[in-house]
Parts: sequence; C-alpha cells; structure tokens
Amino acid sequence: MPKSFDTISTPAVLLEQAIIENNIMRMKKLAARYRVSLRVHVKTHKIPELAHRQIRAGAVGIAVAKVGEAEIFARTGIHDIQIANLVVGEDKLRRVARLTSRCRISLAVDSTEHLKTIASVLGRKSGRLQLLAEVNSGLNRGGVDSYKELEKIFKTAASMKGINLAGLMTHAGHAYGATSKEERSHIGTMEGAMLVNYAERLRRSGYDIRIISVGSTPTANYCAAVKGVTELRVGNYIFNDMTQVALGVAPIDDCALTLMATVISVPSRDRVVIDAGSKALSLDKGAHGRNFVEGFGYIVGTGDRLSRLSEEHGIIDRPKGQYRIGDRLRIIPNHACAVMNLFDYAYLVSKRRVIEKVKIAARGRSD
Amino acid sequence: MPKSFDTISTPAVLLEQAIIENNIMRMKKLAARYRVSLRVHVKTHKIPELAHRQIRAGAVGIAVAKVGEAEIFARTGIHDIQIANLVVGEDKLRRVARLTSRCRISLAVDSTEHLKTIASVLGRKSGRLQLLAEVNSGLNRGGVDSYKELEKIFKTAASMKGINLAGLMTHAGHAYGATSKEERSHIGTMEGAMLVNYAERLRRSGYDIRIISVGSTPTANYCAAVKGVTELRVGNYIFNDMTQVALGVAPIDDCALTLMATVISVPSRDRVVIDAGSKALSLDKGAHGRNFVEGFGYIVGTGDRLSRLSEEHGIIDRPKGQYRIGDRLRIIPNHACAVMNLFDYAYLVSKRRVIEKVKIAARGRSD
Repeated sequence: MPKSFDTISTPAVLLEQAIIENNIMRMKKLAARYRVSLRVHVKTHKIPELAHRQIRAGAVGIAVAKVGEAEIFARTGIHDIQIANLVVGEDKLRRVARLTSRCRISLAVDSTEHLKTIASVLGRKSGRLQLLAEVNSGLNRGGVDSYKELEKIFKTAASMKGINLAGLMTHAGHAYGATSKEERSHIGTMEGAMLVNYAERLRRSGYDIRIISVGSTPTANYCAAVKGVTELRVGNYIFNDMTQVALGVAPIDDCALTLMATVISVPSRDRVVIDAGSKALSLDKGAHGRNFVEGFGYIVGTGDRLSRLSEEHGIIDRPKGQYRIGDRLRIIPNHACAVMNLFDYAYLVSKRRVIEKVKIAARGRSD
Repeated sequence: MPKSFDTISTPAVLLEQAIIENNIMRMKKLAARYRVSLRVHVKTHKIPELAHRQIRAGAVGIAVAKVGEAEIFARTGIHDIQIANLVVGEDKLRRVARLTSRCRISLAVDSTEHLKTIASVLGRKSGRLQLLAEVNSGLNRGGVDSYKELEKIFKTAASMKGINLAGLMTHAGHAYGATSKEERSHIGTMEGAMLVNYAERLRRSGYDIRIISVGSTPTANYCAAVKGVTELRVGNYIFNDMTQVALGVAPIDDCALTLMATVISVPSRDRVVIDAGSKALSLDKGAHGRNFVEGFGYIVGTGDRLSRLSEEHGIIDRPKGQYRIGDRLRIIPNHACAVMNLFDYAYLVSKRRVIEKVKIAARGRSD
C-alpha cells in the first residue's frame, strides 16, 4: 500500500478520516436528540468497514438500494438490513429469501400486485421478511400516492398468511430540488408528518404500525423532529459533496471524499487538463438527475470548478489558480455516491498520510 | 451461467453478437477502402476477448485511454497498444516502461515540458516507446495548438538521445457537437487535413513522420478518406448507442449494447419505474459532457425514453407503451462506453439466447 500521496496512481478516491468521524458523530447526536433509530444508507460508500463503524457509533442497522449490496454487507455480519427499494422478480426474491437465514431483512412494497408477487414467490418464508409500505411523499418515483391505496395494501396483507407488513417508509428525494433552507425544512417536515398521519389513520383502522422510516441527508434535521417518526434513514452525510454544499446542507470543510487527480496538460493560460473525467467523477450535477451544481467538481485550494469532462479528461476553462503539469489536485465531486461506484478501492487518509487502502466491496452491485 | 434472459438478475448488459460482427466488418471495410491501418479503441468495451476478435478481423492493434487499461490488455497477449493520452507522473511512466517489455507501446506528448518528463523518468528506456505528438484539432482539450509549438517538440525530441517521436495524432471529439452530417464531414476532413499538412511541413524541415493517427466514430468516414492519413482510431462503432443515433452516425438497429432492466412499479398511467438508474445507465446525454440526446435511454419496442434517473431507479414519465410490474425491458443507452464502465460482466447474446458471460476486465481502470 502506498504510504504517501505521491505514489498513488491517479485518479484515486481519498477519504479523510477525521471528517468522516465528525460526520458520523453529528448524525448520531441528531438521532439521539429526537430519540429516533438511525439507519445508515450504505449505497453512499459501499464499504463494509465503514458500515460497521457507523453501527458501533449507534446505528441500528443499514439500508441498501439493491439485493446485490445486501448480499455483500450480510456476509460481513451485519444483522439488520433494509432494502429500501421495490424488489421485483423471482430470481431477486429467492436471493432475498436466502438472506433471511443470516439477518433481518426488510423490503419496500408499493402495490397489492407487488405484495402478491412477494407472497407467491416466497410462500411461507415471507413471514421472515419485514415489509414496509412505501409512500410517495413528493419525489414521484415509486410509492403509493394516496391513503386509499395504502389501506388497500394493508388490507390485502392482513388477509395473507405470514405476511409481516410492519410500517411505512418514504424518501423525500425532491428535497434535492429545494431552492432554500425553508423549502428543505418544509419538505422534511411534510415527509415525517405525512407518514405519521397515515400511520394514525391505519392504527385507527386496526393495523399495527411499528415502523415509520423516513429520511435523506438534506431533510434529516426536519423529518427526524416530527413526533411519531421512529427511524431516520440517511446515507450521503458520511461524506457530503458539492450537492450538499450547493443545497446549504454542509460546508466545504465537512466534505470527506476528495478525488486526487493529476494535471496532464496546460495548453494555454485559458485551459488546464487533468487525468480524471466522467469515468472517475461522474456527470452528476445534483441528485435525481437535477442540474443545479455549477461545473463537475471543486478544486480544493484554488476554488476552481471543472468546466467539462470527457471520459478520462477533466478541463478547467479560464482557471483562477496556477497549475503546472504533474500537480496533484484534490477535487470535491458533485455526487460522492456516484464516485464511489466508479472505483474498486479508496484510500482512508489523515491529511497527507495514507492510513488504509479499503475495498469498495459493493461497488457495481446494482443487481 | 444463466441460459435464458429470464434468470439474469437485472440490470444487466447484453451485447448482441450479430450486430457486433456487422459493426466490426463495416469498419474493417472502411479502413481497407482507404488503405489505412485500423486501430480499435477498447475503452468502449474494456473486454480483451472483443479486442482479439477485432484484431482477428484486421485491426493492427488497440488504443486505450489509460495505463491501467493497457496493463489488462497487454496481459492477454496484445502486442501493439497506443495509450492515446498524455501519461504524466513518475509512477505511471514506470508502469509504462514495464509494459514495453511485453509489447509495443505508443504514447501521446503535447509539450516540451511533458517530453522532458518522459525522458527524465525513462532515461535510456524511452527509446522503446513510440511517441506521437498530440495536436488539438478543435476539441480544445489537450494537444498543441499551433505548428510552431509542434515543431518545437520535434526539435527538442531530436536533441534528446533515444527519443522516438514517430508522428502525429489527434481526436476530433468536437464532432460530437456537430448538428448536421455536413458539419461532421467538415470536422472529419479537417481533422485529417490538418495533420497531413503539419506532417508535410515537418517533413520539409527534415523530420521523419511515419504515423498520422486520427479518428472517432462520427468522423471515421471522412478523416480516413484524407490522403496521407495512415491510421484510423475508433472505439464506439463496435456497439453504437443513442449518441451515434442522434448524430445520424448509426441507425437504432446497429446498436449492439442494450441494458436489460425490470419494471418495478407502475404507480399510475403517467409513470413507470424500472430498476436501473444512473449507476447502471450513467447520466451521459452525449460525449464530452454535451447534452443533446433526449432522455436517458431508449426503450426497445415501445420507443419510450427514460425521463429521469435516480441512482437505482429509472422513470418513464407519460409512457406511450404499456408496461406491467415484472416486465423486462431492453434499453439502448445514450453512451455505451460509460455503461460498460459501470458493470463487471456483460452477456454476449444472440436474440434471446445467452452465448457467454464475459468479464469486463478493464472496467474502472482509470488509473
């Protein structure tokens, strides 16, 4: 393992240990303040060692987006995994069934049709799964759109033997389109309030709602504060990125992930070329395909932004800073989760010292 | 290995064998017609088996963008590798030096400073490398901007012992911004003509220019036709994608790569959700960060386009086609090269039969 930055081949992902620790502690305190369980979404880092660190710091379990991710993390002894997504297909549901022998697994469901598929594939085994009804709180992706549909799912589940429908979940990802702190606060509060309201109505109809799981890094402060919410689900906060900076969620100093790149050409005063492009930084300019972040990455030190990316080239047009061929830059990417998914390894660092080279074990496990 | 589509976990990359063969043969014929060497850029597929197939079909060698890619392909017995990029840094140049013991390696150089770095790191070993001066033909990325600078590089190289500066190269990637076939034709012709003109002037000054290497899938027809060009370098043509379709370079039927995905939710008539997002399809809407392709992927059969992508969700807003939960779709992505870099394996298929599961061995080798 390279001991110093200068011998790491670029582009490379560097994770600043001290910032990660601070970010973990800050979210732990937030969850503790509102007495909600903290569930960490590991699609951000895809590294089991970091998940275990988050659990040691008080998280009750993890969330993943995919069965493939769940398989990787389950193997490392994590006992509580929420697949915060709609798992469809016989092949996938059989894989989920196998996972239930190792750990507690919860899944989202958003229609009676989906519920019936789960029951038909898993049969009696489905009782070992915990299901959560997914509610659309404004992102307009999956999730039920009305209380009427939601109640229909609970009614259908109650009529099925062995189905364990334990509560509600949502992800208010439309907060990534908020243009002010007020709007973010409103979305976060509504995210919690909508689910708590639905839960109360369901309880009055006789259903046992034990879990109300909400969250996103931009809304965490607000949805966790809603009385009745039981679980806060957050991922990006462990690193932060220029999307969180642009939203006003985190200052630049709280961004733990930087991409190290090398200047490979300075053809003129107007242009600097580095050895990292879209295959290292991704073309994300904000979550959920939104395009509100300026440029494609922030150069630490000079404050320049990458203007353009080819696959393996990044270009700074009209740079403010001074650059020479061979300079090694640290870049805060727009979207940390997307960058982690492009690399097999990351370097855990402390300032300019390399502490550990860690495998991004669940990288690419979109399956 | 799954024998049928129905047991492959989605999202998955499918490569249609017959289309690949047609695409390879078409480009082989184009190069033969103009009597230029064909060098295949393997950053598109990152699969050694496909590179060997292209070489058996007449390619003289491969191009890669990165040292990491070169290392993977060299190991499989490919003897002629052009790293069509500026390699900077002692660590990288030492890795290149090690590669020269296995195969012929050529590298780009675009400044006297860069040339001196190469010579200082590699010393006498540098003679085993073939260098090509990179010319900026309008992409405005790396490359020298004037004949004067170019001649300076040749003059400096001539004064250095053991430096083998053998010719010129360029990539007219700005053709990806062309809005008509005429513009593409003009860019392609200029790309070839500019280098041939520079080569003639350099020859008159006594320099031995053996190689003039040009190319891109959108300009191949035009730059290969320029008299004096010796080498056509192309990558994407083996698969094609919605970027080539949008440019008018290839019809949809010539697109060999499809992403198979599953419908996971149909919350309303207005919205369909699939299990593939930016971590499977990328957010590319055209090469070099250009944004001219509509949506984020084309659904084969229905003609719908993906309207939005989260990391693991794709959304079709206001679909024309009919979709049900569990349907498996085939999607032509906007940028095939970006998709290959997100997966570890691809399935070589013939209609609905799986022929082979192949490892995308150089995936993620941006280092």
